[in-house]
Amino acid sequence: MTHPRPGPAPVRQASLRGHNLAVVLRDVADRTALDRPGGADPSRAEIAERTGLSRATVSTMVDELIGARLLAETGPASRGAVGRPSVGLRLDPGGAAGLGLEVNVDYVAACVVDLAGAVRYHRIRHVDLRTRTPRRALAEVETLAGRAVRSAARQDLRLAGAALAVPGLVQDQLVRLAPNLGWVDVAVPPEWHRLPVTVDNESNLAALGELAANPALPRSFVYVSGEVGIGAGIVVDGELVRGSRGFSGELGHLTIHPDGPVCRCGARGCLEQYAGQDAIRAAAGRPVPPDGIPTSVAEFVALADAGNLPMRNALQHAGEALGVAIAGLVNLIDVATVVLGGSFAPLEPWLRDPIAGELARRVVAARWAPVDVVPSVLGEDAAVRGAAGSVIRAVLDDPATWINGAGR
Amino acid sequence: MTHPRPGPAPVRQASLRGHNLAVVLRDVADRTALDRPGGADPSRAEIAERTGLSRATVSTMVDELIGARLLAETGPASRGAVGRPSVGLRLDPGGAAGLGLEVNVDYVAACVVDLAGAVRYHRIRHVDLRTRTPRRALAEVETLAGRAVRSAARQDLRLAGAALAVPGLVQDQLVRLAPNLGWVDVAVPPEWHRLPVTVDNESNLAALGELAANPALPRSFVYVSGEVGIGAGIVVDGELVRGSRGFSGELGHLTIHPDGPVCRCGARGCLEQYAGQDAIRAAAGRPVPPDGIPTSVAEFVALADAGNLPMRNALQHAGEALGVAIAGLVNLIDVATVVLGGSFAPLEPWLRDPIAGELARRVVAARWAPVDVVPSVLGEDAAVRGAAGSVIRAVLDDPATWINGAGR
Repeated sequence: MTHPRPGPAPVRQASLRGHNLAVVLRDVADRTALDRPGGADPSRAEIAERTGLSRATVSTMVDELIGARLLAETGPASRGAVGRPSVGLRLDPGGAAGLGLEVNVDYVAACVVDLAGAVRYHRIRHVDLRTRTPRRALAEVETLAGRAVRSAARQDLRLAGAALAVPGLVQDQLVRLAPNLGWVDVAVPPEWHRLPVTVDNESNLAALGELAANPALPRSFVYVSGEVGIGAGIVVDGELVRGSRGFSGELGHLTIHPDGPVCRCGARGCLEQYAGQDAIRAAAGRPVPPDGIPTSVAEFVALADAGNLPMRNALQHAGEALGVAIAGLVNLIDVATVVLGGSFAPLEPWLRDPIAGELARRVVAARWAPVDVVPSVLGEDAAVRGAAGSVIRAVLDDPATWINGAGR
Repeated sequence: MTHPRPGPAPVRQASLRGHNLAVVLRDVADRTALDRPGGADPSRAEIAERTGLSRATVSTMVDELIGARLLAETGPASRGAVGRPSVGLRLDPGGAAGLGLEVNVDYVAACVVDLAGAVRYHRIRHVDLRTRTPRRALAEVETLAGRAVRSAARQDLRLAGAALAVPGLVQDQLVRLAPNLGWVDVAVPPEWHRLPVTVDNESNLAALGELAANPALPRSFVYVSGEVGIGAGIVVDGELVRGSRGFSGELGHLTIHPDGPVCRCGARGCLEQYAGQDAIRAAAGRPVPPDGIPTSVAEFVALADAGNLPMRNALQHAGEALGVAIAGLVNLIDVATVVLGGSFAPLEPWLRDPIAGELARRVVAARWAPVDVVPSVLGEDAAVRGAAGSVIRAVLDDPATWINGAGR
């Protein structure tokens, strides 16, 4: 599609087409989402009826979306008319896909999610990135991304882009600060393997991943991400609350004891020093070997399961500190649901009671506004899944841009 | 206006009229607000141009709004046409007014604000309500409200309603908990002196009062209210963030030391125990006499001004605790502006440095996202002014309801 000369009319036409493409695609996406297994694939007539677009417009848009492999036809729709059976439509799982990437303190991860929300590739590589330079750490991600890209190609998927989850403060393409990685002002390349790369905070992406994957979740909740660092993704009415400059959700740096141990961020007594993975390890008498790769959180679970007292006590104390911080969060913004994510998800059986105890004690409105604390369904995969999902969401929100550039 | 029989058509007509009345009134209000002294009073033609309504519709609406004394004509508008000079319009200061009320731990207050935002009556009565039952405390408010109502009548103002600010958790007409007053589930009468009464949290109303009174304030900020208790009103894009159940902003119950002194709410180590007025008094060696009326915060200011060391130290420690709590708030929701309100406003010269120190130390994004801490322009009057303003706002948002019921 070309614009021989600039002017308002062609632009308006393009944006109207773009708008209508998005309306039709969103309607199908909402009806056939993974979290609604019983939903029937809608017909062109049903889309026209629900969206208020004319049947002719819907047909044109659907044809274009099928041509771009964003929609696919299925068998006759369940609620076809009496005459000619109408054909159902759904998102084409062989069309656009999103590449999710994550760099964290002790692992890198990649996954590919297709338009219909199915995970088509997923790898985690455990590696202690505290001992690597940012350049080497990003090279680890790029290598893993390369494998994911090749897998997507073999599956005939067309990747629309990549999103990278980072445990730190992000501004555009710059990681301002990732205390536990020791990163300050690290620029992420705008492109890897010819794919555009965006960067976002891992707790924010994890919250979006959890929202998409867990149909039981209300549209307003806080996702608490527990790795070596601790962060939160605040979701209100299905949208992230990013704050004035995009730096919201730094739950790990809430003060638990003003004179407590020094945190990687420079302050004293931050939550991470009581409930981060390293803090739990140390409290349980199992610190990270000086330059060894730390064992996974599965070790914590195994020890706690076996009744290991130092680990049980460490989790009890971590849960109390988490409870104090989450109580602060609830007192400030009054949320009804807190999702324990990352490594906190498998540890939830031991964290649940101390957290609930502090919430009952410290949330002023606890009696009238109880708080549900639930484990994440995605656990440590939430951020990388959310990252892939954010790429998909961009295609669903603006299919015209994808179609116009799809000849790549 | 009557609806002889129910049906969709007349209702739609009524709501269209209501909508247009609100659009016209809001346009005049936005152009002639107190915080825009240089703004010209708009003409009917200008309103039509800006709102997209026809001139005939605007004229009809303006006539009705003038008849109801919500609008008043002024001299010719500055930007009149070449021909007949057009008449300017502004909010009628002699029309509807709002009654703001406040019950706090050691005072009750009332004020009347007219449609144009001017304060027409204002009284504070210092009285220690901790020694009164809720019924007696509410009787104090009702008495003061009576004086305000009579003053409004003498000034030929028509009160549209009353709003009561309360330092506690509010659900509809019920004060669920006001720890520093010792109130649990106290119902506020739906009517006083024939005026409908609404109830809201004092920090929320104070934030709205400050927003209306301070044109220098950005549209997103947090108002921190410091009385005996401490609360916060969180404003994003000009709207209160109330949380899932309306209990947001309980900054006073953020934990400073998990094992600190017991708070009136039952928890340990809440901010109020370090930076509330009683805590400052006690730390400065000037506790409240057992059943005397506590002296005002002016005493704190006088002592600090005179270089009294115990008071200076008490304010330093209060500021540090406030800084820890505000750092937590900023880490969680990333706001760029914090307003120190209530008694914190006159104490700001002594609180500023310790707060700034903790923010610099504890806000992870401080280097890239600085936080402005500024004193409130309304100080202890913010809540009662915001309460009156909320009544005015309701009239501006829905003038039709006011007009329809104005024959009272």
